[in-house]
Amino acid sequence: MELSALQKARYAYNPKLPASLSQPVDNIALEFGDPTESIADQAELKSLFKHSYGKPIVKFASGSNDKIRRKLNVGVILSGGQAPGGHNVIAGLYDGLKKGNKESKLYGFLGGPSGLTDNKTVEITDSMMDEYRNTGGFDMIGSGRTKIETPEQFAASLETAKKLDLQAVVIIGGDDSNTNAALLAEYFLDKGSPTQVIGCPKTIDGDLKNEHIEASFGFDTAVKTYSELIGNIERDSNSAKKYWHFIKLMGRSASHIALECALQTQPNICLISEEVEAKKMSLGQVVDQICDSVVQRAAKKQNYGVVLIPEGLVEFIPEMKKLIAELNDIMAINADEFLALPSFEDQSAWLGSKLSAESSALFASLPQDIAKQLLMDRDPHGNVQVSRIETEKLLIGMTEKKLAELKKAGKYDGKFSALGHFFGYEGRCAFPSNFDADYCYSLGFSAFVLIASGLTGYISSVRNLVAPADKWIAGGVPLTMMMNMEQRHGSKKPVIRKALVELEGKPFKTFASKRGTWAVETSFLFPGAIQYYGPAEVCDQPTKTLQLEH
Amino acid sequence: MELSALQKARYAYNPKLPASLSQPVDNIALEFGDPTESIADQAELKSLFKHSYGKPIVKFASGSNDKIRRKLNVGVILSGGQAPGGHNVIAGLYDGLKKGNKESKLYGFLGGPSGLTDNKTVEITDSMMDEYRNTGGFDMIGSGRTKIETPEQFAASLETAKKLDLQAVVIIGGDDSNTNAALLAEYFLDKGSPTQVIGCPKTIDGDLKNEHIEASFGFDTAVKTYSELIGNIERDSNSAKKYWHFIKLMGRSASHIALECALQTQPNICLISEEVEAKKMSLGQVVDQICDSVVQRAAKKQNYGVVLIPEGLVEFIPEMKKLIAELNDIMAINADEFLALPSFEDQSAWLGSKLSAESSALFASLPQDIAKQLLMDRDPHGNVQVSRIETEKLLIGMTEKKLAELKKAGKYDGKFSALGHFFGYEGRCAFPSNFDADYCYSLGFSAFVLIASGLTGYISSVRNLVAPADKWIAGGVPLTMMMNMEQRHGSKKPVIRKALVELEGKPFKTFASKRGTWAVETSFLFPGAIQYYGPAEVCDQPTKTLQLEH
Repeated sequence: MELSALQKARYAYNPKLPASLSQPVDNIALEFGDPTESIADQAELKSLFKHSYGKPIVKFASGSNDKIRRKLNVGVILSGGQAPGGHNVIAGLYDGLKKGNKESKLYGFLGGPSGLTDNKTVEITDSMMDEYRNTGGFDMIGSGRTKIETPEQFAASLETAKKLDLQAVVIIGGDDSNTNAALLAEYFLDKGSPTQVIGCPKTIDGDLKNEHIEASFGFDTAVKTYSELIGNIERDSNSAKKYWHFIKLMGRSASHIALECALQTQPNICLISEEVEAKKMSLGQVVDQICDSVVQRAAKKQNYGVVLIPEGLVEFIPEMKKLIAELNDIMAINADEFLALPSFEDQSAWLGSKLSAESSALFASLPQDIAKQLLMDRDPHGNVQVSRIETEKLLIGMTEKKLAELKKAGKYDGKFSALGHFFGYEGRCAFPSNFDADYCYSLGFSAFVLIASGLTGYISSVRNLVAPADKWIAGGVPLTMMMNMEQRHGSKKPVIRKALVELEGKPFKTFASKRGTWAVETSFLFPGAIQYYGPAEVCDQPTKTLQLEH
Repeated sequence: MELSALQKARYAYNPKLPASLSQPVDNIALEFGDPTESIADQAELKSLFKHSYGKPIVKFASGSNDKIRRKLNVGVILSGGQAPGGHNVIAGLYDGLKKGNKESKLYGFLGGPSGLTDNKTVEITDSMMDEYRNTGGFDMIGSGRTKIETPEQFAASLETAKKLDLQAVVIIGGDDSNTNAALLAEYFLDKGSPTQVIGCPKTIDGDLKNEHIEASFGFDTAVKTYSELIGNIERDSNSAKKYWHFIKLMGRSASHIALECALQTQPNICLISEEVEAKKMSLGQVVDQICDSVVQRAAKKQNYGVVLIPEGLVEFIPEMKKLIAELNDIMAINADEFLALPSFEDQSAWLGSKLSAESSALFASLPQDIAKQLLMDRDPHGNVQVSRIETEKLLIGMTEKKLAELKKAGKYDGKFSALGHFFGYEGRCAFPSNFDADYCYSLGFSAFVLIASGLTGYISSVRNLVAPADKWIAGGVPLTMMMNMEQRHGSKKPVIRKALVELEGKPFKTFASKRGTWAVETSFLFPGAIQYYGPAEVCDQPTKTLQLEH
C-alpha cells in the first residue's frame, strides 16, 4: 500500500489523553454521581428501560481499579456516515484493552451494525491498528446504516455476542445509533446476557450534544475543512470581485455546520434553518434577506459575496414543507394519472388544480429547474427527494428574479453573477484535526475503562474540551439520561434528543450580533487548511461553537 | 481587520531565496548567455520585435553590481485569474527594491492591466505589504482580464509610465499576459521610453512552462488543495462503498491539473484531454473507458470509485467539438427561426434536419439536461458556452445509460450511484504552499534584479526547483525566446506557446503505466491538507509533475 507523506507522518502522532486516563490503568478509579433521570418522559422511559434506566454519571479519578486487568473480548461498530476520528476511537479502545490485559481481544464488526447481526468480524491486530492511527475515513472496518430494530435482529445480536464471548459492544454513531445502543444494552440485560453496550458520540453534523456531551467527534475536522474552502472562495470572490458564491453545506436536520463555518469565515450571509423555522419565514423572505445584502453591496460597487446555506433549509421553510407534503400526497394518490402526463407543462397544469392556493402559487414561483426536480427525482415511495433539491441553485434563481424586479423598480443597480457549490463529502473523511484525534482517542480509551468497570448503557464522555487535553474530564453518561419520547414514523419512540441550533445560545447570538455588518462590509476571515504541526493557536483550537458554549 | 490564527502565523514566515539572491544585493552579478532565437517563426518575430528580439538568457551569480543601488519607481500588475502566491511576488519585488534603495517606490496598478492604461494606482507601503505576505488571493491590488491591444491602450500605458516616472512595469500573469508584456516592452523601446517591462509566470493551470520556465506559480498550491479534497472523497468512497464520484477539475486548455491530481491521489480513472484528442476518441469511447472500470470493479463487489475529469474535456473530443461548431453556425445563421421554436422538442427536431448526420446522432445520444444546456446557455455572440457544460453530469448520464445496456446484455451486474463535483475556486486563493511562497518571493526578487540591471522584455525565471531553495537558479529569460506565431481570432499573432500535457513526457507516462491497476484495484492515496509547518517531506515537496520532469 502506497502512503502519502502526511499519512506516514500522522502515524507517528501520539494523541493526548486527559490526566485521569494517562496514569497507569490500575490507578483509574470511578467516581459515581447520584441516580439520574431522563430529560423528559421519565415514567415511560423507566418502564421501557427497566434494567438500565437512571444509572449515575461516572467520572474517572485517581485511586485503584481491581477490575481493569481482566481479559476482555470487545466488539466495535462504526455506524452511519463517516466522521473524522472514527479510527482513533478504535485506537483508544484498542490501546486501553491491551494496556489492561495483553490477552484482551478487539473485534471490528464489518460494514456497520449488520456486522453484529450477521457476525461478520475481523480481529484487530497491532499491525492493522497501526495502519489507521490518526487517519480519516471508516475504511478500517467499514460502516453501515442498518438499525437493529426487529426482534430477529436483537436475537441475532445476542447470538453473535454469545459466540464471540463478548464482554461488550461499542457502538460509534450519531443520535440514532446511540439510541440503538441504549436499546441493545437494555435487551442484553433483559436476556441475562453479560454483554455490555457502550456508545460513542459521532457526527459531523454536531447535533448530538447536550449538557453532558459537549461535542460529537468529527464536527471539528469537518467544519475546519469546509471553512478552509469557504475562506479560499471568499478570498477569490474578494479578488475577482465579480461573483456571488452560494455554498450549500452538509447537515440536513441542524445548522451547526453552517453556523460554525460562518463564525470561522464571516461570510456576507449565512442562513440558519432553525431561525427560518422559528420565524416562519417564507421562501420570498429568505430571498429578500439575500437581496438586501446584494443591493447594499452593489451600492458600494461590491457586486460579489458569499452566502452559506444549510443543506436542510427547504424543509425548515414552512410553506416549502407544506408544498412538499402536498406534492407527496397528490402524486402518491394519483400516481398513475400523474405519470401519464407527457410534459412538465402538463404536469404543472394538473398540479395547479390539485394543490392548495398557497402551494400552487409557490410552485409557480419556483425556477423551472427546481420545480422539475421536485417532480422528477422521487424516492421509491414516490416522495420528493428533498436531499436532491439543489437549494443553492433554487436561491440563485429566485435571487436573480427578485433582483430583476428591483432593477426595474429602480431600487437596484448592480451586476449579479452567481456560482453554486456544495461541500459535504470533502470533509467527512479528512485526517482528523489534532482536536478530533485527541478527543476520539480519549473517547475510545474511556469506553475501555467503562467496559472494564462493568458498566452498560453508557455513552463515553469527555468534557471540559476547551481546556488543554490533560485537563479534560473523562467518564460516562447513562444513555437513558439523554432520552425522551418522540413521534417517529407514526408511533412514539424513545430517542436521544437531537440538538438543534439554540437561537438563545451564545454561538447563534454572537453570529446574530455581527451578521448585519458582514452582510454589507467585506469582513471575510480566511482560516486556511487544517494544520497538524506548528503553533498551538493554529493547530489545537477547538471550534468557535465549543468555545462560545463553554 | 480580523485575522485567522493561520494568517497571523503566516505573516511570520520568511520565504527562502536562492543563494544568488540571499547575498548582499551589491554582490548580485549578472551572467549573460549567447543571443537567443524564438522557438519558431524567427524571421517574423524578429521583424515584430525589432528592439527586443533575441536577447541573451541571464543568470544571477556572485560578483558586483553597480546599478543595483539606483532609486527606482516600479509598477506591478496582477493579470488574469487568481493563483496562490501572487502577493509573494509583490513582496519579493518590494523587498528587493527597498534593499536596493530605500527611496525606491513600488506602485500597484489596481484591477489588472486597466490600472496601467487608466493610471489607477496605490503606492505600496511597508504596512500594506505586511498585511499580504504569504497570503493567497489577489485582493491586495486586484486583478483583471483587460488586454493591452489597441494603439490607444499602448499610448495610454506609455502616458502612465511617463507620469509615474517608471523604471519598469512588472506583469504577473499567464501566457497571454506575458505575451502582452513582450509587446509592451517592444512598444516602449520603439517609442524611446526608458520604461522596462518584466513578466512573471503565473497560472494554476500549469500551462505556462517550457525549457526555461519549469513551473508557473500557483500550480503547486492549487493541485495540492484539489488533491486534499479528492483524497478525502476517495477515503469517503472507500468507507461508504456506495458512490462513484465524478470530479471535474478547473483547467480548460490543458490537463496538467488533472494529471498531477491523479499522480497525487491515484483515482480509478483520470481523463486527459490531450490524449483524448490525440487518439481522436469519441464521447462513446470515453464513456466505455469509464464503464470498463465500473464493470470490473463491480465484479469484485466494489461499486464505488473516483473519476477525475479536466474541465475542458468536451472541446478535445473531436465529434463534440464538431457538434458545438455546427450548433454555433446553425443557431447564428438561423437565430430568429431557432428562437421562435417553443419547446426543446421542437428545437431538437429542427436541429436534427440541419446538423450533419454524425452530429445529429451524437446530439440525440446526449442526456437531455446536457442537450438543453447546449441550446440554452449561449454567450452574447450566440455561441454555446462550453464552460457551462456540466461535463461531470454528462459523463454520469452517459455512463448510467451504457451500464443499463450492459446489464441488459448480461455483461454487468452491479449498482451504480454517482455524485458530481467541481473544484476550481477552492484552490485559486489558498494560502500559498511553502513551495509557492518561496518560489513567488524569489520570482519577485529576481524581477527586481532584472529591473535594476536595466533589462526589458524578460520573464523572471527561477529554475532547478526540485532542489532545496538555496540551490535554485535565478535569472531572466527573454520573452521572445518562448514565442511563435499562432492563428488567433482569424489572424497570425505572436504568442507564447501554451504547454499542453506531453503524451511522451514522464508525468503522463508514469500515470499511463499505473492507471490500468488503479482502474480496477483500489489504490487511493490521501495527501491531506497542505501543511506549512512540520516535517520537510510533508511541507516542502514540489509537485510530482515537477519531480518527474526534472
